[in-house]
Amino acid sequence: MVTIHLADNEPGDLVVPADDRGLAYGDGLFETILVHNGVPQLLEAHCCRLLEGAARLGIPLTAEELQQALARVSHRMSAVPARQVLKLLLTRGSGGRGYRPPASPGPRLITSVMPAPPEPPEAGVAVVISEIPLTVNPRLAGIKSLNRLEQVMASRAMPDDCYEALMCGEQGDLREGTRTALLYLWQGRWFTPPRDRVAVRSIMLSHVEYGLSREGVPVSEGELFPAQCWQPEFGGLFLLNSVIGAVPVQTLDGRKLPRPEQLATIVSLAKQPEEFR
Amino acid sequence: MVTIHLADNEPGDLVVPADDRGLAYGDGLFETILVHNGVPQLLEAHCCRLLEGAARLGIPLTAEELQQALARVSHRMSAVPARQVLKLLLTRGSGGRGYRPPASPGPRLITSVMPAPPEPPEAGVAVVISEIPLTVNPRLAGIKSLNRLEQVMASRAMPDDCYEALMCGEQGDLREGTRTALLYLWQGRWFTPPRDRVAVRSIMLSHVEYGLSREGVPVSEGELFPAQCWQPEFGGLFLLNSVIGAVPVQTLDGRKLPRPEQLATIVSLAKQPEEFR
Repeated sequence: MVTIHLADNEPGDLVVPADDRGLAYGDGLFETILVHNGVPQLLEAHCCRLLEGAARLGIPLTAEELQQALARVSHRMSAVPARQVLKLLLTRGSGGRGYRPPASPGPRLITSVMPAPPEPPEAGVAVVISEIPLTVNPRLAGIKSLNRLEQVMASRAMPDDCYEALMCGEQGDLREGTRTALLYLWQGRWFTPPRDRVAVRSIMLSHVEYGLSREGVPVSEGELFPAQCWQPEFGGLFLLNSVIGAVPVQTLDGRKLPRPEQLATIVSLAKQPEEFR
Repeated sequence: MVTIHLADNEPGDLVVPADDRGLAYGDGLFETILVHNGVPQLLEAHCCRLLEGAARLGIPLTAEELQQALARVSHRMSAVPARQVLKLLLTRGSGGRGYRPPASPGPRLITSVMPAPPEPPEAGVAVVISEIPLTVNPRLAGIKSLNRLEQVMASRAMPDDCYEALMCGEQGDLREGTRTALLYLWQGRWFTPPRDRVAVRSIMLSHVEYGLSREGVPVSEGELFPAQCWQPEFGGLFLLNSVIGAVPVQTLDGRKLPRPEQLATIVSLAKQPEEFR
Protein backbone atom coordinates (compact mmCIF):
# COMPACT_ATOMS: atom_id res chain seq x y z
CA MET A 1 0.00 0.00 0.00
CA VAL A 2 1.17 3.48 -0.81
CA THR A 3 2.28 5.81 1.96
CA ILE A 4 0.99 9.33 1.43
CA HIS A 5 3.29 12.20 2.40
CA LEU A 6 1.81 15.67 2.50
CA ALA A 7 4.04 18.74 2.49
CA ASP A 8 2.90 21.78 4.45
CA ASN A 9 3.80 23.81 1.45
CA GLU A 10 6.87 23.29 -0.71
CA PRO A 11 8.17 19.70 -0.96
CA GLY A 12 11.25 20.80 1.03
CA ASP A 13 9.03 20.76 4.15
CA LEU A 14 9.03 16.98 3.90
CA VAL A 15 11.76 14.42 4.13
CA VAL A 16 12.16 10.98 2.60
CA PRO A 17 14.51 8.17 3.65
CA ALA A 18 17.82 8.37 1.78
CA ASP A 19 17.35 4.78 0.59
CA ASP A 20 14.19 5.68 -1.32
CA ARG A 21 14.49 4.22 -4.82
CA GLY A 22 13.29 7.50 -6.31
CA LEU A 23 16.47 9.10 -5.00
CA ALA A 24 18.74 6.11 -5.62
CA TYR A 25 17.69 5.36 -9.20
CA GLY A 26 15.01 7.81 -10.30
CA ASP A 27 12.59 4.90 -9.80
CA GLY A 28 9.34 6.85 -9.87
CA LEU A 29 7.13 9.40 -11.60
CA PHE A 30 5.75 12.88 -11.14
CA GLU A 31 2.98 15.21 -12.25
CA THR A 32 2.88 19.01 -12.18
CA ILE A 33 -0.68 20.31 -12.25
CA LEU A 34 -1.94 23.89 -12.56
CA VAL A 35 -4.33 24.90 -9.78
CA HIS A 36 -6.62 27.82 -10.59
CA ASN A 37 -9.06 29.24 -8.07
CA GLY A 38 -8.39 26.20 -5.95
CA VAL A 39 -9.26 23.79 -8.76
CA PRO A 40 -6.61 21.45 -10.19
CA GLN A 41 -6.84 21.73 -13.97
CA LEU A 42 -7.12 18.71 -16.27
CA LEU A 43 -6.89 16.62 -13.13
CA GLU A 44 -8.33 13.46 -14.63
CA ALA A 45 -5.80 13.46 -17.46
CA HIS A 46 -2.94 13.95 -15.01
CA CYS A 47 -4.23 11.15 -12.76
CA CYS A 48 -4.55 8.83 -15.76
CA ARG A 49 -0.99 9.55 -16.90
CA LEU A 50 0.34 8.90 -13.40
CA LEU A 51 -1.62 5.65 -13.03
CA GLU A 52 -0.62 4.47 -16.51
CA GLY A 53 3.03 5.30 -15.84
CA ALA A 54 2.89 3.46 -12.51
CA ALA A 55 1.39 0.42 -14.24
CA ARG A 56 4.15 0.47 -16.90
CA LEU A 57 6.83 0.66 -14.21
CA GLY A 58 5.09 -1.90 -12.00
CA ILE A 59 4.63 0.50 -9.08
CA PRO A 60 1.40 -0.45 -7.31
CA LEU A 61 -0.88 2.58 -7.05
CA THR A 62 -4.66 2.38 -7.21
CA ALA A 63 -7.00 5.11 -8.34
CA GLU A 64 -8.53 5.02 -4.85
CA GLU A 65 -5.18 5.66 -3.18
CA LEU A 66 -4.54 8.54 -5.54
CA GLN A 67 -7.97 9.99 -4.73
CA GLN A 68 -7.20 9.73 -1.00
CA ALA A 69 -3.97 11.65 -1.50
CA LEU A 70 -5.78 14.33 -3.51
CA ALA A 71 -8.48 14.65 -0.86
CA ARG A 72 -5.85 15.16 1.81
CA VAL A 73 -4.02 17.87 -0.16
CA SER A 74 -7.15 19.71 -1.33
CA HIS A 75 -7.27 22.13 1.60
CA ARG A 76 -3.82 23.45 0.64
CA MET A 77 -5.18 24.80 -2.61
CA SER A 78 -6.19 28.39 -2.33
CA ALA A 79 -9.71 29.35 -3.37
CA VAL A 80 -8.50 32.85 -4.16
CA PRO A 81 -7.72 33.48 -7.81
CA ALA A 82 -4.06 32.66 -7.40
CA ARG A 83 -2.25 30.31 -9.74
CA GLN A 84 -0.66 27.46 -7.86
CA VAL A 85 1.04 24.23 -8.83
CA LEU A 86 0.15 20.85 -7.34
CA LYS A 87 3.02 18.41 -7.57
CA LEU A 88 2.55 14.66 -7.18
CA LEU A 89 5.71 12.61 -6.83
CA LEU A 90 5.44 8.83 -6.72
CA THR A 91 8.37 6.55 -5.92
CA ARG A 92 8.65 2.78 -5.61
CA GLY A 93 9.68 3.33 -1.97
CA SER A 94 12.62 1.66 -0.25
CA GLY A 95 13.99 -1.86 -0.56
CA GLY A 96 15.07 -4.34 -3.17
CA ARG A 97 18.49 -5.74 -4.01
CA GLY A 98 20.28 -2.97 -5.87
CA TYR A 99 18.42 -2.11 -9.07
CA ARG A 100 16.08 -5.10 -8.64
CA PRO A 101 12.90 -3.87 -6.95
CA PRO A 102 11.24 -5.77 -4.11
CA ALA A 103 8.45 -8.12 -5.16
CA SER A 104 5.95 -6.12 -3.06
CA PRO A 105 7.07 -2.51 -3.03
CA GLY A 106 5.73 0.05 -0.55
CA PRO A 107 5.49 3.14 -2.76
CA ARG A 108 5.60 6.71 -1.49
CA LEU A 109 3.35 9.44 -2.88
CA ILE A 110 4.48 12.95 -2.01
CA THR A 111 2.07 15.80 -2.59
CA SER A 112 2.90 19.49 -2.39
CA VAL A 113 1.33 22.77 -3.47
CA MET A 114 3.42 25.81 -4.37
CA PRO A 115 2.92 29.16 -6.10
CA ALA A 116 2.89 28.94 -9.90
CA PRO A 117 5.83 30.47 -11.79
CA PRO A 118 5.17 33.77 -13.62
CA GLU A 119 3.26 33.39 -16.88
CA PRO A 120 5.30 33.85 -20.06
CA PRO A 121 4.69 37.02 -22.10
CA GLU A 122 1.71 36.61 -24.43
CA ALA A 123 3.69 37.95 -27.38
CA GLY A 124 5.98 34.97 -27.21
CA VAL A 125 9.32 33.77 -25.95
CA ALA A 126 12.92 33.31 -27.05
CA VAL A 127 14.13 29.74 -27.29
CA VAL A 128 17.32 27.99 -28.29
CA ILE A 129 18.13 24.58 -29.73
CA SER A 130 20.01 22.59 -27.13
CA GLU A 131 23.25 20.82 -27.89
CA ILE A 132 22.24 18.10 -25.44
CA PRO A 133 20.60 15.38 -27.53
CA LEU A 134 17.39 13.72 -26.42
CA THR A 135 17.51 9.96 -25.99
CA VAL A 136 14.24 8.14 -25.52
CA ASN A 137 14.10 4.52 -24.46
CA PRO A 138 11.11 3.07 -26.35
CA ARG A 139 10.09 1.17 -23.20
CA LEU A 140 9.96 4.42 -21.19
CA ALA A 141 8.76 6.85 -23.90
CA GLY A 142 5.96 9.12 -22.76
CA ILE A 143 6.40 8.36 -19.04
CA LYS A 144 7.01 11.39 -16.83
CA SER A 145 9.64 9.53 -14.82
CA LEU A 146 12.12 10.88 -12.30
CA ASN A 147 14.97 10.27 -14.81
CA ARG A 148 15.29 13.82 -16.11
CA LEU A 149 19.01 14.45 -16.16
CA GLU A 150 19.04 15.22 -19.89
CA GLN A 151 16.44 17.92 -19.35
CA VAL A 152 18.40 19.27 -16.38
CA MET A 153 21.56 19.47 -18.48
CA ALA A 154 19.76 21.18 -21.38
CA SER A 155 18.13 23.66 -18.96
CA ARG A 156 21.45 24.34 -17.33
CA ALA A 157 23.16 25.15 -20.64
CA MET A 158 20.37 27.53 -21.69
CA PRO A 159 21.23 31.27 -21.79
CA ASP A 160 19.59 33.30 -19.00
CA ASP A 161 17.44 35.33 -21.40
CA CYS A 162 15.86 32.26 -22.96
CA TYR A 163 12.60 30.69 -21.90
CA GLU A 164 13.16 27.18 -23.14
CA ALA A 165 15.66 24.88 -24.83
CA LEU A 166 14.47 22.54 -27.58
CA MET A 167 15.96 19.08 -27.70
CA CYS A 168 16.71 17.11 -30.86
CA GLY A 169 16.85 13.44 -31.68
CA GLU A 170 19.93 11.78 -33.15
CA GLN A 171 19.01 12.92 -36.66
CA GLY A 172 18.72 16.53 -35.52
CA ASP A 173 14.91 16.60 -35.58
CA LEU A 174 13.26 18.82 -32.96
CA ARG A 175 11.35 16.66 -30.50
CA GLU A 176 10.29 18.73 -27.48
CA GLY A 177 11.42 21.39 -25.06
CA THR A 178 12.90 20.47 -21.70
CA ARG A 179 9.48 21.02 -20.13
CA THR A 180 7.17 21.72 -23.10
CA ALA A 181 5.65 19.93 -26.08
CA LEU A 182 5.81 21.36 -29.61
CA LEU A 183 2.96 22.25 -31.98
CA TYR A 184 3.72 23.86 -35.33
CA LEU A 185 2.11 25.03 -38.53
CA TRP A 186 3.41 23.67 -41.84
CA GLN A 187 1.66 24.54 -45.07
CA GLY A 188 -1.24 25.80 -43.00
CA ARG A 189 -1.71 22.50 -41.13
CA TRP A 190 -0.95 21.62 -37.54
CA PHE A 191 1.78 19.13 -36.68
CA THR A 192 3.54 17.76 -33.62
CA PRO A 193 6.69 15.61 -33.55
CA PRO A 194 5.96 11.83 -33.53
CA ARG A 195 4.64 10.90 -30.11
CA ASP A 196 6.60 7.67 -29.73
CA ARG A 197 9.84 9.63 -29.94
CA VAL A 198 9.27 12.17 -27.18
CA ALA A 199 10.24 11.72 -23.56
CA VAL A 200 6.95 12.90 -22.04
CA ARG A 201 3.42 12.52 -23.38
CA SER A 202 1.96 16.00 -22.99
CA ILE A 203 -1.41 16.46 -21.30
CA MET A 204 -1.72 20.01 -22.69
CA LEU A 205 -0.94 18.89 -26.24
CA SER A 206 -3.74 16.32 -26.02
CA HIS A 207 -6.04 18.97 -24.58
CA VAL A 208 -5.36 21.43 -27.41
CA GLU A 209 -5.56 18.66 -29.99
CA TYR A 210 -8.95 17.66 -28.65
CA GLY A 211 -10.11 21.27 -28.82
CA LEU A 212 -8.96 21.59 -32.43
CA SER A 213 -10.59 18.28 -33.37
CA ARG A 214 -13.92 19.62 -32.12
CA GLU A 215 -13.54 22.35 -34.69
CA GLY A 216 -12.70 19.78 -37.34
CA VAL A 217 -9.04 20.73 -37.41
CA PRO A 218 -6.60 17.79 -37.34
CA VAL A 219 -3.15 17.65 -35.77
CA SER A 220 -0.79 15.26 -37.56
CA GLU A 221 2.52 13.81 -36.55
CA GLY A 222 5.51 15.04 -38.51
CA GLU A 223 9.22 15.43 -37.99
CA LEU A 224 10.44 18.98 -37.68
CA PHE A 225 13.98 19.87 -38.69
CA PRO A 226 15.36 23.28 -37.72
CA ALA A 227 15.90 24.24 -41.38
CA GLN A 228 12.14 24.00 -41.98
CA CYS A 229 11.55 26.88 -39.57
CA TRP A 230 13.04 29.36 -42.06
CA GLN A 231 11.04 28.17 -45.05
CA PRO A 232 7.95 29.97 -46.32
CA GLU A 233 5.74 26.94 -45.59
CA PHE A 234 6.45 27.31 -41.87
CA GLY A 235 3.67 29.13 -40.07
CA GLY A 236 4.84 29.28 -36.46
CA LEU A 237 5.66 27.21 -33.39
CA PHE A 238 4.00 26.86 -29.97
CA LEU A 239 5.33 25.54 -26.69
CA LEU A 240 2.75 23.80 -24.51
CA ASN A 241 2.57 22.48 -21.00
CA SER A 242 0.02 22.17 -18.22
CA VAL A 243 1.26 25.12 -16.21
CA ILE A 244 1.85 27.71 -18.97
CA GLY A 245 -0.82 26.60 -21.44
CA ALA A 246 0.41 27.63 -24.91
CA VAL A 247 2.96 30.27 -25.78
CA PRO A 248 4.30 31.13 -29.26
CA VAL A 249 8.00 31.00 -29.99
CA GLN A 250 9.12 34.47 -31.03
CA THR A 251 12.75 33.72 -31.79
CA LEU A 252 14.61 30.46 -32.32
CA ASP A 253 18.37 30.70 -31.82
CA GLY A 254 17.98 34.49 -32.15
CA ARG A 255 16.12 34.40 -35.52
CA LYS A 256 12.56 35.62 -35.66
CA LEU A 257 9.86 33.02 -36.34
CA PRO A 258 6.53 33.89 -38.00
CA ARG A 259 3.77 34.86 -35.60
CA PRO A 260 1.22 32.00 -35.88
CA GLU A 261 -1.95 33.14 -37.67
CA GLN A 262 -4.25 31.25 -35.33
CA LEU A 263 -2.44 32.41 -32.22
CA ALA A 264 -5.54 33.43 -30.29
CA THR A 265 -7.27 30.13 -31.10
CA ILE A 266 -4.48 28.00 -29.71
CA VAL A 267 -3.90 30.16 -26.62
CA SER A 268 -7.62 30.08 -25.93
CA LEU A 269 -7.84 26.29 -26.37
CA ALA A 270 -4.98 25.92 -23.92
CA LYS A 271 -6.97 27.80 -21.28
CA GLN A 272 -8.28 25.06 -19.13
CA PRO A 273 -11.98 24.45 -18.74
CA GLU A 274 -12.17 24.66 -14.96
CA GLU A 275 -10.78 28.16 -15.11
CA PHE A 276 -14.20 29.23 -16.24
CA ARG A 277 -16.27 27.38 -13.72
CA MET B 1 29.81 23.92 -0.21
CA VAL B 2 28.69 20.35 0.03
CA THR B 3 26.70 19.12 3.04
CA ILE B 4 27.89 15.74 4.25
CA HIS B 5 25.25 13.31 5.52
CA LEU B 6 26.43 10.21 7.32
CA ALA B 7 24.12 7.24 7.82
CA ASP B 8 24.48 5.21 11.01
CA ASN B 9 24.38 2.16 8.84
CA GLU B 10 22.09 1.69 5.87
CA PRO B 11 21.10 4.82 3.91
CA GLY B 12 17.54 4.34 5.22
CA ASP B 13 18.76 5.68 8.59
CA LEU B 14 19.05 9.09 6.97
CA VAL B 15 16.51 11.41 5.44
CA VAL B 16 16.76 14.01 2.69
CA PRO B 17 14.35 16.87 1.91
CA ALA B 18 11.71 15.81 -0.60
CA ASP B 19 12.71 18.72 -2.84
CA ASP B 20 16.22 17.35 -3.30
CA ARG B 21 17.03 17.39 -7.03
CA GLY B 22 18.42 13.87 -6.77
CA LEU B 23 14.91 12.69 -5.93
CA ALA B 24 13.07 15.09 -8.24
CA TYR B 25 15.15 14.53 -11.39
CA GLY B 26 17.90 12.00 -10.66
CA ASP B 27 20.21 15.01 -10.63
CA GLY B 28 23.24 13.38 -9.07
CA LEU B 29 25.69 10.49 -8.99
CA PHE B 30 26.69 7.51 -6.91
CA GLU B 31 29.52 5.08 -6.25
CA THR B 32 29.37 1.59 -4.74
CA ILE B 33 32.73 0.56 -3.29
CA LEU B 34 33.81 -2.80 -1.89
CA VAL B 35 35.25 -2.56 1.63
CA HIS B 36 37.48 -5.45 2.64
CA ASN B 37 39.07 -5.72 6.08
CA GLY B 38 37.99 -2.14 6.67
CA VAL B 39 39.75 -0.87 3.53
CA PRO B 40 37.74 0.60 0.64
CA GLN B 41 39.03 -1.05 -2.54
CA LEU B 42 40.14 0.92 -5.61
CA LEU B 43 39.14 4.02 -3.67
CA GLU B 44 41.14 6.46 -5.76
CA ALA B 45 39.51 5.27 -8.98
CA HIS B 46 36.03 5.56 -7.45
CA CYS B 47 36.80 9.07 -6.14
CA CYS B 48 38.10 10.12 -9.56
CA ARG B 49 34.98 8.84 -11.31
CA LEU B 50 32.74 10.65 -8.84
CA LEU B 51 34.69 13.91 -9.16
CA GLU B 52 34.80 13.68 -12.98
CA GLY B 53 31.07 12.94 -13.10
CA ALA B 54 30.35 15.89 -10.81
CA ALA B 55 32.45 18.14 -13.04
CA ARG B 56 30.56 16.97 -16.15
CA LEU B 57 27.21 17.64 -14.47
CA GLY B 58 28.40 20.93 -12.97
CA ILE B 59 27.87 19.79 -9.37
CA PRO B 60 30.51 21.52 -7.26
CA LEU B 61 32.45 18.96 -5.23
CA THR B 62 36.12 19.29 -4.38
CA ALA B 63 38.52 16.46 -3.69
CA GLU B 64 39.01 17.92 -0.20
CA GLU B 65 35.28 17.77 0.55
CA LEU B 66 35.19 14.19 -0.65
CA GLN B 67 38.15 13.34 1.59
CA GLN B 68 36.37 14.92 4.56
CA ALA B 69 33.32 12.78 3.93
CA LEU B 70 35.47 9.64 3.66
CA ALA B 71 37.30 10.50 6.89
CA ARG B 72 33.98 10.85 8.70
CA VAL B 73 32.64 7.52 7.45
CA SER B 74 35.87 5.56 7.98
CA HIS B 75 35.02 4.41 11.52
CA ARG B 76 31.91 2.65 10.18
CA MET B 77 34.06 0.27 8.19
CA SER B 78 34.76 -2.92 10.05
CA ALA B 79 38.37 -4.00 10.46
CA VAL B 80 37.25 -7.60 10.71
CA PRO B 81 37.50 -9.62 7.49
CA ALA B 82 33.92 -8.91 6.51
CA ARG B 83 32.95 -7.70 3.07
CA GLN B 84 31.06 -4.43 3.23
CA VAL B 85 29.89 -1.88 0.69
CA LEU B 86 30.52 1.85 1.01
CA LYS B 87 27.97 3.87 -0.92
CA LEU B 88 28.53 7.50 -1.83
CA LEU B 89 25.51 9.35 -3.19
CA LEU B 90 25.97 12.92 -4.42
CA THR B 91 23.05 15.16 -5.38
CA ARG B 92 22.91 18.74 -6.61
CA GLY B 93 20.87 19.54 -3.46
CA SER B 94 17.65 21.56 -3.41
CA GLY B 95 16.63 24.63 -5.37
CA GLY B 96 16.49 25.91 -8.93
CA ARG B 97 13.54 26.68 -11.18
CA GLY B 98 12.18 23.33 -12.28
CA TYR B 99 14.81 21.46 -14.24
CA ARG B 100 17.10 24.52 -14.31
CA PRO B 101 19.59 24.18 -11.46
CA PRO B 102 20.48 27.09 -9.19
CA ALA B 103 23.59 29.05 -10.19
CA SER B 104 25.26 28.11 -6.91
CA PRO B 105 23.99 24.71 -5.83
CA GLY B 106 24.44 23.34 -2.32
CA PRO B 107 25.09 19.68 -3.04
CA ARG B 108 24.45 16.82 -0.62
CA LEU B 109 26.84 13.91 -0.20
CA ILE B 110 25.30 10.91 1.55
CA THR B 111 27.62 8.17 2.80
CA SER B 112 26.55 4.78 4.10
CA VAL B 113 28.18 1.43 4.82
CA MET B 114 26.26 -1.83 4.56
CA PRO B 115 27.03 -5.56 4.41
CA ALA B 116 28.14 -6.76 0.97
CA PRO B 117 25.79 -9.04 -0.97
CA PRO B 118 26.77 -12.74 -1.18
CA GLU B 119 29.53 -13.49 -3.68
CA PRO B 120 28.46 -15.22 -6.90
CA PRO B 121 29.45 -18.87 -7.34
CA GLU B 122 32.99 -19.20 -8.72
CA ALA B 123 31.86 -21.65 -11.38
CA GLY B 124 29.79 -18.95 -13.00
CA VAL B 125 26.30 -17.56 -13.28
CA ALA B 126 23.20 -17.75 -15.44
CA VAL B 127 22.30 -14.58 -17.33
CA VAL B 128 19.63 -13.51 -19.77
CA ILE B 129 19.48 -10.94 -22.54
CA SER B 130 17.04 -8.22 -21.52
CA GLU B 131 14.25 -7.03 -23.75
CA ILE B 132 14.68 -3.54 -22.31
CA PRO B 133 17.02 -1.72 -24.71
CA LEU B 134 19.87 0.41 -23.42
CA THR B 135 19.84 4.05 -24.46
CA VAL B 136 22.95 6.09 -23.78
CA ASN B 137 22.99 9.85 -24.15
CA PRO B 138 26.45 10.65 -25.52
CA ARG B 139 26.63 13.62 -23.14
CA LEU B 140 26.02 11.40 -20.13
CA ALA B 141 27.80 8.20 -21.28
CA GLY B 142 30.04 6.68 -18.63
CA ILE B 143 28.59 8.72 -15.75
CA LYS B 144 27.21 6.71 -12.85
CA SER B 145 24.22 9.01 -12.51
CA LEU B 146 21.04 8.57 -10.49
CA ASN B 147 19.06 8.04 -13.75
CA ARG B 148 18.95 4.26 -13.67
CA LEU B 149 15.35 3.44 -14.53
CA GLU B 150 16.33 1.35 -17.58
CA GLN B 151 18.52 -0.80 -15.35
CA VAL B 152 15.72 -1.08 -12.78
CA MET B 153 13.29 -2.20 -15.46
CA ALA B 154 15.74 -4.76 -16.88
CA SER B 155 16.46 -6.08 -13.37
CA ARG B 156 12.78 -6.28 -12.60
CA ALA B 157 12.04 -8.35 -15.73
CA MET B 158 14.87 -10.79 -14.98
CA PRO B 159 13.87 -14.37 -13.91
CA ASP B 160 14.52 -15.11 -10.23
CA ASP B 161 17.14 -17.77 -10.98
CA CYS B 162 19.28 -15.41 -13.07
CA TYR B 163 22.18 -13.39 -11.76
CA GLU B 164 22.21 -10.60 -14.32
CA ALA B 165 20.42 -9.24 -17.39
CA LEU B 166 22.49 -8.05 -20.35
CA MET B 167 21.29 -4.94 -22.16
CA CYS B 168 21.59 -4.34 -25.90
CA GLY B 169 21.89 -1.24 -28.03
CA GLU B 170 19.47 -0.41 -30.83
CA GLN B 171 21.28 -2.73 -33.23
CA GLY B 172 21.02 -5.62 -30.79
CA ASP B 173 24.67 -5.51 -29.74
CA LEU B 174 25.36 -6.51 -26.13
CA ARG B 175 26.61 -3.50 -24.22
CA GLU B 176 26.67 -4.24 -20.48
CA GLY B 177 24.76 -5.86 -17.66
CA THR B 178 22.42 -3.84 -15.48
CA ARG B 179 25.23 -3.58 -12.90
CA THR B 180 28.23 -5.21 -14.61
CA ALA B 181 30.64 -4.57 -17.47
CA LEU B 182 31.41 -7.22 -20.10
CA LEU B 183 34.76 -8.76 -21.05
CA TYR B 184 34.89 -11.54 -23.62
CA LEU B 185 37.29 -13.74 -25.56
CA TRP B 186 37.04 -13.77 -29.35
CA GLN B 187 39.59 -15.68 -31.43
CA GLY B 188 41.73 -15.93 -28.30
CA ARG B 189 41.82 -12.17 -27.73
CA TRP B 190 40.11 -10.04 -25.09
CA PHE B 191 37.39 -7.56 -26.03
CA THR B 192 34.91 -5.25 -24.34
CA PRO B 193 31.99 -3.39 -25.96
CA PRO B 194 32.92 0.16 -27.15
CA ARG B 195 33.29 2.37 -24.07
CA ASP B 196 31.48 5.39 -25.52
CA ARG B 197 28.32 3.31 -25.89
CA VAL B 198 27.95 2.02 -22.35
CA ALA B 199 26.00 3.72 -19.59
CA VAL B 200 28.64 3.39 -16.88
CA ARG B 201 32.44 3.43 -17.20
CA SER B 202 33.51 0.43 -15.16
CA ILE B 203 36.23 0.80 -12.51
CA MET B 204 36.71 -2.97 -12.34
CA LEU B 205 37.03 -3.29 -16.12
CA SER B 206 39.81 -0.68 -16.08
CA HIS B 207 41.45 -2.47 -13.17
CA VAL B 208 41.46 -5.85 -14.95
CA GLU B 209 42.55 -4.24 -18.19
CA TYR B 210 45.48 -2.61 -16.42
CA GLY B 211 46.43 -5.96 -14.90
CA LEU B 212 46.33 -7.65 -18.31
CA SER B 213 48.33 -4.85 -19.90
CA ARG B 214 51.12 -5.43 -17.37
CA GLU B 215 51.33 -8.96 -18.72
CA GLY B 216 51.42 -7.61 -22.26
CA VAL B 217 47.87 -8.72 -23.00
CA PRO B 218 45.69 -6.10 -24.72
CA VAL B 219 41.94 -5.57 -24.36
CA SER B 220 40.33 -4.17 -27.53
CA GLU B 221 36.94 -2.61 -28.11
CA GLY B 222 34.59 -4.63 -30.23
CA GLU B 223 30.86 -5.01 -30.69
CA LEU B 224 29.41 -8.27 -29.43
CA PHE B 225 26.26 -9.66 -31.01
CA PRO B 226 24.45 -12.54 -29.30
CA ALA B 227 24.93 -14.81 -32.33
CA GLN B 228 28.71 -14.59 -31.85
CA CYS B 229 28.41 -16.35 -28.51
CA TRP B 230 27.56 -19.65 -30.22
CA GLN B 231 30.40 -19.54 -32.71
CA PRO B 232 33.63 -21.54 -32.29
CA GLU B 233 35.70 -18.33 -32.14
CA PHE B 234 33.94 -17.31 -28.91
CA GLY B 235 36.00 -18.20 -25.85
CA GLY B 236 33.84 -17.04 -22.93
CA LEU B 237 32.30 -14.03 -21.23
CA PHE B 238 32.93 -12.37 -17.88
CA LEU B 239 30.81 -9.98 -15.84
CA LEU B 240 32.75 -7.41 -13.83
CA ASN B 241 32.01 -4.88 -11.15
CA SER B 242 33.66 -3.42 -8.09
CA VAL B 243 31.72 -5.47 -5.57
CA ILE B 244 31.79 -8.92 -7.21
CA GLY B 245 35.13 -8.66 -9.06
CA ALA B 246 34.87 -10.97 -12.09
CA VAL B 247 32.54 -13.89 -12.61
CA PRO B 248 32.20 -16.07 -15.74
CA VAL B 249 28.88 -16.43 -17.48
CA GLN B 250 27.91 -20.08 -17.43
CA THR B 251 24.69 -19.88 -19.43
CA LEU B 252 23.24 -17.16 -21.64
CA ASP B 253 19.49 -17.42 -22.18
CA GLY B 254 19.74 -21.01 -20.95
CA ARG B 255 22.48 -22.07 -23.43
CA LYS B 256 25.87 -23.06 -22.09
CA LEU B 257 28.78 -20.75 -22.88
CA PRO B 258 32.38 -21.99 -23.09
CA ARG B 259 34.30 -21.83 -19.82
CA PRO B 260 36.96 -19.15 -20.42
CA GLU B 261 40.44 -20.69 -20.66
CA GLN B 262 42.08 -17.94 -18.63
CA LEU B 263 39.38 -17.97 -15.96
CA ALA B 264 41.76 -18.03 -12.99
CA THR B 265 43.84 -15.17 -14.44
CA ILE B 266 40.88 -12.83 -14.79
CA VAL B 267 39.33 -13.72 -11.43
CA SER B 268 42.70 -13.18 -9.78
CA LEU B 269 43.28 -9.82 -11.52
CA ALA B 270 39.84 -8.72 -10.30
CA LYS B 271 40.90 -9.38 -6.71
CA GLN B 272 41.67 -5.96 -5.48
CA PRO B 273 45.17 -5.04 -4.31
CA GLU B 274 44.25 -3.85 -0.85
CA GLU B 275 42.77 -7.25 -0.08
CA PHE B 276 46.33 -8.48 0.25
CA ARG B 277 47.70 -5.76 2.44
